[in-house]
Amino acid sequence: MSPKITTELLKQLRQVMKSPKYVQEPVQAYIVPSGDAHQSEYIAPCDCRRAFISGFDGSAGTAIVTEQHAAMWTDGRYFLQAAHQMDNNWTLMKMGLKDTPTQEDWLVSVLPEGSKVGVDPFIIPADQWKRMSKALRSAGHDLVPVKENLIDTIWTDCPHRPCKPLITLDLSYTGVSWRDKIVALRAKMAERKVLWFVVTALDEVAWLFNLRGSDVEYNPVFFAYAVIGMNTIRLFIDGDRMMDPAVREHLQLNSTLEPEFKIQVMPYESILSELQAVGASLSPKEKVWLSDKASYALTEAIPKAYRYLTPYTPICIAKAVKNASETEGMRRAHIKDAVALCELFNWLEKEVPKGTVTEIIAADKAEEFRSQQKDFVELSFATISSTGPNGAIIHYKPVPETNRTLSVNEIYLLDSGAQYKDGTTDVTRTMHFGTPSAYEKECFTYVLKGHIAVSAAIFPNGTKGHLLDSFARSALWDCGLDYLHGTGHGVGSFLNVHEGPCGISYKTFADEPLEAGMIVSDEPGYYEDGSFGIRIENVVLVIPAETKYNFKNRGSLTFEPLTLVPIQTKMIDVNLLTQKECNWVNDYHRKCREVIGAELERQGRHEALQWLIRETEPLTRAQ
Amino acid sequence: MSPKITTELLKQLRQVMKSPKYVQEPVQAYIVPSGDAHQSEYIAPCDCRRAFISGFDGSAGTAIVTEQHAAMWTDGRYFLQAAHQMDNNWTLMKMGLKDTPTQEDWLVSVLPEGSKVGVDPFIIPADQWKRMSKALRSAGHDLVPVKENLIDTIWTDCPHRPCKPLITLDLSYTGVSWRDKIVALRAKMAERKVLWFVVTALDEVAWLFNLRGSDVEYNPVFFAYAVIGMNTIRLFIDGDRMMDPAVREHLQLNSTLEPEFKIQVMPYESILSELQAVGASLSPKEKVWLSDKASYALTEAIPKAYRYLTPYTPICIAKAVKNASETEGMRRAHIKDAVALCELFNWLEKEVPKGTVTEIIAADKAEEFRSQQKDFVELSFATISSTGPNGAIIHYKPVPETNRTLSVNEIYLLDSGAQYKDGTTDVTRTMHFGTPSAYEKECFTYVLKGHIAVSAAIFPNGTKGHLLDSFARSALWDCGLDYLHGTGHGVGSFLNVHEGPCGISYKTFADEPLEAGMIVSDEPGYYEDGSFGIRIENVVLVIPAETKYNFKNRGSLTFEPLTLVPIQTKMIDVNLLTQKECNWVNDYHRKCREVIGAELERQGRHEALQWLIRETEPLTRAQ
Repeated sequence: MSPKITTELLKQLRQVMKSPKYVQEPVQAYIVPSGDAHQSEYIAPCDCRRAFISGFDGSAGTAIVTEQHAAMWTDGRYFLQAAHQMDNNWTLMKMGLKDTPTQEDWLVSVLPEGSKVGVDPFIIPADQWKRMSKALRSAGHDLVPVKENLIDTIWTDCPHRPCKPLITLDLSYTGVSWRDKIVALRAKMAERKVLWFVVTALDEVAWLFNLRGSDVEYNPVFFAYAVIGMNTIRLFIDGDRMMDPAVREHLQLNSTLEPEFKIQVMPYESILSELQAVGASLSPKEKVWLSDKASYALTEAIPKAYRYLTPYTPICIAKAVKNASETEGMRRAHIKDAVALCELFNWLEKEVPKGTVTEIIAADKAEEFRSQQKDFVELSFATISSTGPNGAIIHYKPVPETNRTLSVNEIYLLDSGAQYKDGTTDVTRTMHFGTPSAYEKECFTYVLKGHIAVSAAIFPNGTKGHLLDSFARSALWDCGLDYLHGTGHGVGSFLNVHEGPCGISYKTFADEPLEAGMIVSDEPGYYEDGSFGIRIENVVLVIPAETKYNFKNRGSLTFEPLTLVPIQTKMIDVNLLTQKECNWVNDYHRKCREVIGAELERQGRHEALQWLIRETEPLTRAQ
Repeated sequence: MSPKITTELLKQLRQVMKSPKYVQEPVQAYIVPSGDAHQSEYIAPCDCRRAFISGFDGSAGTAIVTEQHAAMWTDGRYFLQAAHQMDNNWTLMKMGLKDTPTQEDWLVSVLPEGSKVGVDPFIIPADQWKRMSKALRSAGHDLVPVKENLIDTIWTDCPHRPCKPLITLDLSYTGVSWRDKIVALRAKMAERKVLWFVVTALDEVAWLFNLRGSDVEYNPVFFAYAVIGMNTIRLFIDGDRMMDPAVREHLQLNSTLEPEFKIQVMPYESILSELQAVGASLSPKEKVWLSDKASYALTEAIPKAYRYLTPYTPICIAKAVKNASETEGMRRAHIKDAVALCELFNWLEKEVPKGTVTEIIAADKAEEFRSQQKDFVELSFATISSTGPNGAIIHYKPVPETNRTLSVNEIYLLDSGAQYKDGTTDVTRTMHFGTPSAYEKECFTYVLKGHIAVSAAIFPNGTKGHLLDSFARSALWDCGLDYLHGTGHGVGSFLNVHEGPCGISYKTFADEPLEAGMIVSDEPGYYEDGSFGIRIENVVLVIPAETKYNFKNRGSLTFEPLTLVPIQTKMIDVNLLTQKECNWVNDYHRKCREVIGAELERQGRHEALQWLIRETEPLTRAQ
């Protein structure tokens, strides 16, 4: 990896920072955040502005360029990568270290008095603007919105914003029509006494209209906004995608609908002016509902007194609770995904001893097996295929420079998943193709105990996921081990592999309570720097539990694993398991054998079936 | 309980709400919060203004009186009590129910346009003022500070503010001199670049100067403020308490000290004007540190640009970590406390079958036995002595109207504690003096499993207490049972029985990480409405743990019980315990027998010793 040479680019950026063509007054600093206008986690190439200006292309980082300096804030996952990818025009600001200044403090320390700090108001979320603006103002500076994105003005070969065809999802996939979703949304709006709802997150637009796209890799979303009134529906979307007869039919654009279900299609870029018009039309007490993470530009379009901001939108919350059709789709997707992984592991078992399988080859092979399955669309994230010390890098992705060959002497960790038209998968298995050491088995077994503790947990209705996080750690803690990431995240239904508002993590507190139908991951791990990584991840469905006393009719919940891929018994030190844990593993493997075995049989994949049968032999504990 | 007749009082209050003698302009509503000027949890009689105006004397509640209405907000613990104590001038606002409006929403719905809402700026914390003021302003009203407390103007027989003598604590109790505490505080101030620190919480003043008082029942504190500068110490305190030679000697008021340790004693009431003078003297970048819970009046005395507000003060954090002298004192206090309880339980075992022991008699007897112990000062909170259905009322306190007789047919729950000069205790035991039912034993055993799960938990240094809360619930959850309170709170060292900034509760998130030397309670429970209550509470000390891998030198922590009172084995269904849990109980009882047995022996309390020996017989589990 050689660093990107940015001298010329920075010179150009500093010129436009002073150019009356783009800024009313010169800005002494310009902030380049990571995100796009929808605060997406994964972004399209045209939105990778921070990577363009700096060379650093990790998933998190904020660049700030002043007349004298160029600085990059990123977190511990990316210190090494950022240092490699950036030239010496850049100063790396290591977030989380004690001596690293915040962006605000740094700006205050380097800026001349009374400076202006520019930022694209579409990229910065409103809550972040507020914090930054306040800090700068109290030091005598101003945060100012710069309408035209200054990076775009110097990015001559900037790729076009993707505008790929849409996929329509019928009721057999979604369970609820877009009309009924609009009706439910309007009911929530009426409950909160708001007149308008602005949909800014891409997965929320996709979910609401039962449409999918492929504008962003791994995420089946498309660039669009929507503004829902009590009697109007406006969809802001570009290109000729609305000319597709299937889409027109799906949205009933040609039908004579009741006016409140008539969708007005408008250009993507017109969202701001339309929203400003809405803002100008409001009477006292009329409110507009936005996510508090919506961009500063859109939030500002609505005068402050009319805004109703919440951390989670009603769409985000409704989307998290999967209905019967979605749940069935997720089950089907996970069965197909398990078939692909049985094929892969069977293949690896034969090939790894030959010394010819690299991390990249294994990842490609996993994709190949998945792509053979019905309704496969794409991967749901970049495959983490890592062996030996690479496994300890939590967000590792093999590239030629780091690509390692799998061997019978090292642990192999595969965290991967796919988008199928009926569901999204995300599964991690940790395997050894030779003989694991006692210490490796010990660590694996603690991680497994944590995985089981969450998966088998019973808890009252209304419990927040973060309250379950410690269950996953208890066995590790007892021996003085831990892992530095959360235990689980929400998973979309043929949508983003990470979605709110629920999860299982010590880091969050404002998560919404778990309820039946929600789907999260359960993925504790253990990482020994320089040696190996272990993670065991299933996607699990929240289901009602049966308990002796049922919380006085408050109701009980537990989890059902949707992922049905064997957990390598060779890695388990069975004497560290309780009888209950041992039974859990055997029940799980019995189900894998039944459900996935039947599908392997049906697909005529006999060798993988034999592998599955071998790998699901029951454990027995010494008494 | 008959309600207080408040018609005349409300008439008088409404008059002063319009009287130019007290308000610049009439206020259309007046808020009467629960607290005092120090945001204390327990308050002195002179501060019980909300109880005076309404009759409702529960520990939490806010009254709002308008020209037409009088409304009281309180939580589920007090719905019944408030309804009984208030006459029909009052509307009860049941907090936590879906249809109950917030105070702000209610005010907006009943007030005429452009109203003024008054509140005593010394009683309302700054953060609460901010929230309330913002909500009212956005609806066109104003929150205004009313300098003179309007309740005080009509409370003709208001008791005097207590002004009791002080107790000085020498190094053998405190471990650190007040001078060294000032030095440490100034170091923290220098670290954060603040010039002044304002001590507003009563227990923080007491801790800082190694003084105790008795102005508030159960809490060994005294009314005072302090303002610490880098070279000055100002103590705001009333009465002739500073004339006491022991206090003068302790604070070295007569010595020729270095000027930076010279304490200036000032009248309690002069805090505001002195703080305003400090505020007026500041140069740019000079800061004053306050708790964000300090009163609005004191916070406003410092111009906004000069304020440095934190949720926990450095004193609060330092106070929570007990030094060796404090820990030893706490150990001694808990040994004495256990002696008193062994005496009590031995006595109850003999007397209860006679049918002559009521809840009040039992509570009084507990106090009698405690008061025989060395350095006993007072109780640390109102004793919860409850039998049968009363045990299910979590904050029960026996009064003649509810006083129930203990019997061999009902569970008895005793939650009690004391202030000794060397430490503060808080212990709950649940006993049966006849034969408990299988269901009672089952529930008790789940609670015990939860208690053990927390007490024996091992976790990495830096873990926040709220992450341990679910451990206490897991066994109950498995059977569909739960309890609706947190699992533990911080405990002071001869100070408040509830103190921040740590605890074990699903409700908090902003607690400070646990560290060795902190002391918290571990008190899961189970409550069957109308039948019984179960709670098992020990005070536990955070200590370093030894683990196999020690979190890569991050360090491990666990708890050591300071409370050493037998847990009634008759209530335990031993077959529901794991071998590890059984061992924990036996180890705990062995320690009780050793440590408390020796002290009972030393004090010549032979009958109680025999009781202790009987109650600490080891459990055996069927294999």
